Amino acid sequence: MPLVQITMLAGRTADQKRKLARRITDAMVEDAGAKREAVVVAFHEVSKESYASGGVLMADK
Amino acid sequence: MPLVQITMLAGRTADQKRKLARRITDAMVEDAGAKREAVVVAFHEVSKESYASGGVLMADK
Amino acid sequence: MPLVQITMLAGRTADQKRKLARRITDAMVEDAGAKREAVVVAFHEVSKESYASGGVLMADK
Amino acid sequence: MPLVQITMLAGRTADQKRKLARRITDAMVEDAGAKREAVVVAFHEVSKESYASGGVLMADK
Amino acid sequence: MPLVQITMLAGRTADQKRKLARRITDAMVEDAGAKREAVVVAFHEVSKESYASGGVLMADK
Amino acid sequence: MPLVQITMLAGRTADQKRKLARRITDAMVEDAGAKREAVVVAFHEVSKESYASGGVLMADK
Repeated sequence: MPLVQITMLAGRTADQKRKLARRITDAMVEDAGAKREAVVVAFHEVSKESYASGGVLMADK
Repeated sequence: MPLVQITMLAGRTADQKRKLARRITDAMVEDAGAKREAVVVAFHEVSKESYASGGVLMADK
Repeated sequence: MPLVQITMLAGRTADQKRKLARRITDAMVEDAGAKREAVVVAFHEVSKESYASGGVLMADK
Repeated sequence: MPLVQITMLAGRTADQKRKLARRITDAMVEDAGAKREAVVVAFHEVSKESYASGGVLMADK
Repeated sequence: MPLVQITMLAGRTADQKRKLARRITDAMVEDAGAKREAVVVAFHEVSKESYASGGVLMADK
Repeated sequence: MPLVQITMLAGRTADQKRKLARRITDAMVEDAGAKREAVVVAFHEVSKESYASGGVLMADK
């Protein structure tokens, strides 16, 4: 019953998330032996003011 | 100091979340020996385009 | 398809986690309208050196 | 490649998050030996109806 | 700078995780436009006593 | 009641985590207006086989 949680910047389309969910679920089934119906994928989208790398907000890059 | 984080589809009312927070905290206190004031419950709500099971977005079901 | 993730100090027994999983799932079904088979509960257990409140590790309290 | 995820009530300004990201990244570099460019900080902001302590929503306090 | 966090039962081999990390990163690059070097994948592995679906621990199924 | 969750490679000492918890809590209090006693910091430590960047496990770098 794998849970896949993805934190990323907001702005991807539903279609991009559709493809990601399918491919990531395929990988969990084929490479980790998970049951397809048990794989959950959730996207947590954050704004550029809520995401930093190297100590600098994405909004400031 | 247990942290309870719940990821679910958006759409529940404040009253539903109020009841969930109380019951889940009761369970943590009564069954896990946690101190009531130390239990934190946070709800992360996602849209139907940001949640998939079995590789299919909830928006497509 | 609610995901409930609980971060707490290690040391609870399987039986305590069994009761917590059942009660929390009951709450999600009865108060949030979730389907029982779709509720996932995961416990992430951390040591006293990996948990702090008020800026002080639990190991130092 | 440390990931720092912060769940807090919505309402902080971009400037507050800017300072937090910088200070927390500094701490990861100086005290944990992380490489600066590898530290990621993400803020997950929740409403007062989605956050409870002691079993009571922040909206009810 | 997407963060992919996977919670699953312990027991997968390093090689399974190696393949998962590569395929999931490929998906993030090809379908979400992420930069390869910025994708982080972390596996959080839990025991059968720490994972439940439908209110029942995996250890009891 | 901010929750700070840090995912990083295992191997830091208790003293490193002690300093991180204190500095990060100081930042939350001074820059985000949090109450000191309400700040929780949890470290989730993963092995080199459970952590990847750029699609490559840390164990393979």
